[in-house]
Amino acid sequence: MPVESSVDLSSDLWRQVQPEAARRLMLAALDSFASRGYHATTTRHIATGAGMSPAALYVHFPSKAALLSEISRTGHELTLALVERAVSQGGDPVARMRALVEEFVAWHAERHTVARVVQYELDALPEEAHRVVADLRRRTEQVVRDAIADGVEEGSFDVPDVRTAALAVLSLGIDVARWYTVRTPKSPRTLGREYADLVLRMLGAKAA
Amino acid sequence: MPVESSVDLSSDLWRQVQPEAARRLMLAALDSFASRGYHATTTRHIATGAGMSPAALYVHFPSKAALLSEISRTGHELTLALVERAVSQGGDPVARMRALVEEFVAWHAERHTVARVVQYELDALPEEAHRVVADLRRRTEQVVRDAIADGVEEGSFDVPDVRTAALAVLSLGIDVARWYTVRTPKSPRTLGREYADLVLRMLGAKAA
Repeated sequence: MPVESSVDLSSDLWRQVQPEAARRLMLAALDSFASRGYHATTTRHIATGAGMSPAALYVHFPSKAALLSEISRTGHELTLALVERAVSQGGDPVARMRALVEEFVAWHAERHTVARVVQYELDALPEEAHRVVADLRRRTEQVVRDAIADGVEEGSFDVPDVRTAALAVLSLGIDVARWYTVRTPKSPRTLGREYADLVLRMLGAKAA
Repeated sequence: MPVESSVDLSSDLWRQVQPEAARRLMLAALDSFASRGYHATTTRHIATGAGMSPAALYVHFPSKAALLSEISRTGHELTLALVERAVSQGGDPVARMRALVEEFVAWHAERHTVARVVQYELDALPEEAHRVVADLRRRTEQVVRDAIADGVEEGSFDVPDVRTAALAVLSLGIDVARWYTVRTPKSPRTLGREYADLVLRMLGAKAA
């Protein structure tokens, strides 16, 4: 079955990456990792996808592992920033959790190609990148746990186990990247809102 | 980062597959698909993993795609059988949904290696296998949707949208395969019970 063309690479992905050639290589690497898988991708595939020679690739990245590391690190940084921003926008614990789930789910739908590579190619990361990414993941999980614990303490949430509930919240968001495609009729934003409602019920939210 | 040895291949996997050589090839293929990815696996890797020659592999399977198809089909059949059995065991809609989630989650934890290949390598399936598997997936989703709709009709559940709720229930179970490892301190069974509690709250279950 040919890989569906479920490209979610709107033109603003990695807009801050300089020079432009490095950005093009990251987009080409993402494309190949997503369609062929990381292990079956060669630096030649990536260079060709970016319209460059393999030699030109090495000017910017020493290896395909370096490209995966950069994609994974920036993807995890974005996710962490997104949940941190959501919970820092004030409001009560219910409003904060609603914002967190809406943003987290919408991101995994909108950016499902990046999210898939970021989530499913962890084992392929070199050791140093793995450490960096593991730290970003722990911090993201902690934001979610704290957001739930705040609500429990404040009396808005009621969960048997904060850790398990946090895992479930993250799972609901992350798994969206597995099944969401550009042909899914529901918009990322609508899905985010519906999932936020479900999560608030799951957390026993009083106002839900 | 070397792939962790998170082998969940208890000896009874594919016990019904005959002859024994075919079963050994499926286990070796699963192992290689899970660690290297499907695209980077060669029939030589699989044959070597099974202690056989590449020529001996072809006696049983015409290609690595045939092995993936067989792994995927049997995995999906098992999942469908499991949810069908759970909802057919009687009880009210709440008891049936509890059984469904417990079994579904425990299976994805216990068999995370199989489940990962089954869930994440759909794009690599040949067209015919893809059709078969898509049908099994539709039927599994339908069982979950029906189980929720029954509860809504009977007054035990209260959800804004049955389709979205069913997606969320399936996501919670499937995503367990992504993060569960043999080192996860919680047993598959305990996790299944905790997730069933969360799902029942999500569905607005009266008795939850």
